[in-house]
Amino acid sequence: MFRCASSSILRQVSQANKYGHGIRWQQTAAAGLNNTMSPAELRERQAVTTFDTAKMTHLLDHDNHDMRDRFRRYQQDPASYMKPKYNISLEEEREVALQRLKAVCDNDFISVLNFNDNPYKIFAAHELVGIIDPSTCTKMTVQFNLFGGTVLKLGTARHHDKLLKGIDNLNDVGCFGLTELGYGNNAVEMETTATYDPATDEFVVNSPTTLAQKYWITNGAIHAKWIVVFAHLHLKGTNHGIHGFLVRIRDDNMKVLPGVTVEDMGIKIGLNGVDNAKLSFDHVRIPREHLLNKHSDVTPEGEFHSSIEGARQRFLTVADQLLSGRICIAAMSVGGSKACLAIAARYAATRLTVGPRGKSDMPILSYQLQQRALLPLIAQTYAINLAVDYVKERWSEQPEDGSQHADIVTMCCAIKPVASWLFERVVTTCRERCGGAGYLACNRFGVFMGSAHAAMTAEGDNSVLMQKVAKERLAVFRPAKPEPFEVDLADTASLHKLLAARENLTFGQLGMKLMKAGKAGLFDSWMLRESDLVQAAARSYADRLVSERFAQVIGKHADPALAPVLQQLYHLHLLTIVEANLGHLVTTGLLHPKVGAGVSAAAAELCTQLGPHTLQLVEAFGIPEEMLSAPIARDWVKYNAYDNQGEV
Amino acid sequence: MFRCASSSILRQVSQANKYGHGIRWQQTAAAGLNNTMSPAELRERQAVTTFDTAKMTHLLDHDNHDMRDRFRRYQQDPASYMKPKYNISLEEEREVALQRLKAVCDNDFISVLNFNDNPYKIFAAHELVGIIDPSTCTKMTVQFNLFGGTVLKLGTARHHDKLLKGIDNLNDVGCFGLTELGYGNNAVEMETTATYDPATDEFVVNSPTTLAQKYWITNGAIHAKWIVVFAHLHLKGTNHGIHGFLVRIRDDNMKVLPGVTVEDMGIKIGLNGVDNAKLSFDHVRIPREHLLNKHSDVTPEGEFHSSIEGARQRFLTVADQLLSGRICIAAMSVGGSKACLAIAARYAATRLTVGPRGKSDMPILSYQLQQRALLPLIAQTYAINLAVDYVKERWSEQPEDGSQHADIVTMCCAIKPVASWLFERVVTTCRERCGGAGYLACNRFGVFMGSAHAAMTAEGDNSVLMQKVAKERLAVFRPAKPEPFEVDLADTASLHKLLAARENLTFGQLGMKLMKAGKAGLFDSWMLRESDLVQAAARSYADRLVSERFAQVIGKHADPALAPVLQQLYHLHLLTIVEANLGHLVTTGLLHPKVGAGVSAAAAELCTQLGPHTLQLVEAFGIPEEMLSAPIARDWVKYNAYDNQGEV
Repeated sequence: MFRCASSSILRQVSQANKYGHGIRWQQTAAAGLNNTMSPAELRERQAVTTFDTAKMTHLLDHDNHDMRDRFRRYQQDPASYMKPKYNISLEEEREVALQRLKAVCDNDFISVLNFNDNPYKIFAAHELVGIIDPSTCTKMTVQFNLFGGTVLKLGTARHHDKLLKGIDNLNDVGCFGLTELGYGNNAVEMETTATYDPATDEFVVNSPTTLAQKYWITNGAIHAKWIVVFAHLHLKGTNHGIHGFLVRIRDDNMKVLPGVTVEDMGIKIGLNGVDNAKLSFDHVRIPREHLLNKHSDVTPEGEFHSSIEGARQRFLTVADQLLSGRICIAAMSVGGSKACLAIAARYAATRLTVGPRGKSDMPILSYQLQQRALLPLIAQTYAINLAVDYVKERWSEQPEDGSQHADIVTMCCAIKPVASWLFERVVTTCRERCGGAGYLACNRFGVFMGSAHAAMTAEGDNSVLMQKVAKERLAVFRPAKPEPFEVDLADTASLHKLLAARENLTFGQLGMKLMKAGKAGLFDSWMLRESDLVQAAARSYADRLVSERFAQVIGKHADPALAPVLQQLYHLHLLTIVEANLGHLVTTGLLHPKVGAGVSAAAAELCTQLGPHTLQLVEAFGIPEEMLSAPIARDWVKYNAYDNQGEV
Repeated sequence: MFRCASSSILRQVSQANKYGHGIRWQQTAAAGLNNTMSPAELRERQAVTTFDTAKMTHLLDHDNHDMRDRFRRYQQDPASYMKPKYNISLEEEREVALQRLKAVCDNDFISVLNFNDNPYKIFAAHELVGIIDPSTCTKMTVQFNLFGGTVLKLGTARHHDKLLKGIDNLNDVGCFGLTELGYGNNAVEMETTATYDPATDEFVVNSPTTLAQKYWITNGAIHAKWIVVFAHLHLKGTNHGIHGFLVRIRDDNMKVLPGVTVEDMGIKIGLNGVDNAKLSFDHVRIPREHLLNKHSDVTPEGEFHSSIEGARQRFLTVADQLLSGRICIAAMSVGGSKACLAIAARYAATRLTVGPRGKSDMPILSYQLQQRALLPLIAQTYAINLAVDYVKERWSEQPEDGSQHADIVTMCCAIKPVASWLFERVVTTCRERCGGAGYLACNRFGVFMGSAHAAMTAEGDNSVLMQKVAKERLAVFRPAKPEPFEVDLADTASLHKLLAARENLTFGQLGMKLMKAGKAGLFDSWMLRESDLVQAAARSYADRLVSERFAQVIGKHADPALAPVLQQLYHLHLLTIVEANLGHLVTTGLLHPKVGAGVSAAAAELCTQLGPHTLQLVEAFGIPEEMLSAPIARDWVKYNAYDNQGEV
């Protein structure tokens, strides 16, 4: 198993070429290498420096530079618990994830109050911690964003006084109890109720059926004392819609309280440091004051008041942390993508195989096969990194009056899918391009695969979010008159214009289809007939948004010295999108077939140009060797010189 | 975490439609469903039977029907060890994998002698055992194909007498020692030597460096007593090329023998029931008779003889089991793809969410989004299943004179990549389309993800094998004069003709490029400039081959009653390939843009037509519920009604 091909083709090609001249690769930095050199030496010999790496890292980091640098140094400390362990039990894996989270908190890398003073820091913590341990990061996102953020924003002084400190120092670990087994994708149909009992001034929280169990509840199986239960508020026979209720589930000795049933969900395909649980409530009584009452409240006299009109709007308000949650997951996906690409590129530079003379003297990074696999993903990761930063800015700086909220909701719903889908492609491709070496757990692609798969369906199934994006964008869509223009593949502005034209076209088509279907045919059209178009429209919006931001950064924000390489990456990013959508672009007439015929070659040429810079491009991700941890990203020969048992 | 989107779009669309009429889905079998029905009842209500399921299973099974049915019954026996366990230690996982393999052997599901009397049975065992436990299957493929098959075919009576019985009953577990750490993709450059010592009539086996370790050696860490070491045979100062040598590595008490170093490779991203090891040899002495001497031998007088000319050809001969190994992996990939699709489809039929009235009463299988994700993969799995059967036939029935060997090598090198790449897409897509439920280990996508990733790079990195395919095909390529023709998307013969034209075009282009590059530019062209074209050419060959076989089966072999649905699946398979290559087909002029514009809609329409038959299509895969094992493929509500701890 796990042997790469015996490559008779390479051999035979190379033999035929034995006496050839002018072999291009010999003119590159990769010439003159052999297997007696250490991986570090092999990388050093191929190093080509064309831009200021630190400045590029600064650009990609975007914010909280001190905190990020502090984290990078901190995780190198052996006492930080940050070094991965592999062959450990489920119990230990969960305990390690908690200890790591505790270290993150104790060292001031995150606080729930950052939502007030520095929300960028919360997203930065997700990017960085997600590289170290996606389980820790997932526990963190539930504790600080979903649970903590909900207590902060839906709660009032009485909840803040009771919990904020404990949220930050993990004395009060909490859960977010929204999803029910039967209603994961239709939460408003949930069955759990909180019925007000005026006799005792309490709510009675109850989940009546198996399908009503709160499901997938992170931190629930072991570590949480609290949960925010989302339930229909019943009062005097009226359902006032879904609200959030603080329910204590464990006492100070971590014993589960009466009426609460907690069942451990066991092993998952990834993120096994996360203690997920099924929770149900058998007429559990909580004080009236445990209703998170920022917007809606029940008075001591048993009257319901709300500043928000309508059950639907109330539901959206109580579930608002899902929105920042999507940015958290996008940031985590960017971090994971960067780590995978850094590992794969660093390995490829040190893995020697058949060169033109049949000897093992050519790094696989020099092969076009490897460059065509990795470089477009590197370009896309740069693009998504910059775009996620933009969404962070829009979300963090939005005006109080809510005038930009709808727009920002759409962006959050688009950026999480594109970031996590890219992450999945990155980890799958990098694993494959690293061959058997990529299959060892210590080389970390398994961890990131688990993270990417979680990201694609957590905080909203990507495809369902894209349906929402399409709908919201369609509502504000004003068609532009299509103006035929000749696309210049060498010109990024022209390629961007093509993406904008595609967005205009797909939304125009979608609008026409729905108009034609009429009100009675709307559901059929949307769910049964035009699903491809709905997804394509949402994607065309996201692609245009990401491209816009990349152009903007090159034009306005970036150090001029970085502009040339950023421009090349932007160009490759655009060509990669055009290549992936070539059939659509050409058959819809947006791109002339003769121009379209040159897209792959243009992308390939850019990969060849960028090839020698691959190591520097991933170096700029700013992930220290200790943080990558994977032996193949470091000295994998030395790693194999002793009995390592698969550990690092 | 893991909540699906709150789907306000679905809700709002459905509300707008509340009073609509003529909603199509209500006219389907999926109407009138609700969450009080059990999963079994939900599936039964949607059952649409249009063909004879048993006949279809018989067609897909191809051979060894009794053995396959016996296995399906056998694995249901609780005493068979076949029920998965999840939260277990590495040690237990490996022990369970061995016990399962022992059960497979003891119950006559495989024998190394099947290579002589019934090679189809070996491939059938891979397909079936790979569904139960890919770790067991991997240990099996090394024991019976790589180790056992090599002893059988390269060994002579003395080796057969010593080992064949023990191979079948696992008293003699063995390894296949080809890959070295430094030379995974360039095996002929390996460093390990076997030097003949005339003084003692022994070979001295030695691996001199860290890079010379035999790496990834399955069965090596714990269970093997033997290894076939591939090493350069040195005799009187001459290197006679790479040969296979039987080396004992553990005694009867499983103690590692002197001079042999075995290091456990530890945890991997999948297949953790496989005990992979690094092995090295410090001047280990073995009797001269341990050379596997069918084709080459050293006489007691110390003379080397061989019936094979040249070191290169000798290497290909000794590594010949890689070829059948590729068919084994293709069969395993087909089994895994079928299992994933059956699990995903069965779940989708029972997962109710937002219907036109906003209630949770519509199975997600009715959504076009789900059908467009699953049905093309189902069609492709049918296609690859039939194509793998064809390669099995060609490999098993080839004439003794070797006249078809080159052709068959190419087919094996093409079918493993297309089968395993499809497997990867299937498992990734099915996991995502099952949302959070797909993330639980007990629902098995994690196991299959590990299997798919192993399959993509084991027995030859897919992309490197495809380079070999392109080269071999190019060598026999005779360009056909391109005749312009109008493609009819409704006609499978026309679509097949399009695939043939694409193959003709890509190989023609590749040939031109190489001719232009000349001998001196060959390596550059192949490895640095035309990698995309090389891969596309190989793919175009594989696609044409798969299509040809599908058409043949419909025309000649299949029960006429199966023909209509097979024809639909074949059609969808072809449209899926055309859709994936639309940009290329249109920009090269093979397909007119106006015709190309209709491809996605045609594929979508076929998905809509096949949608109601999805459950029957996966039922025909012939995998009993107990063998799927995943709770979401069975009664997942009942599964969640108790404290399951993630186990089944």
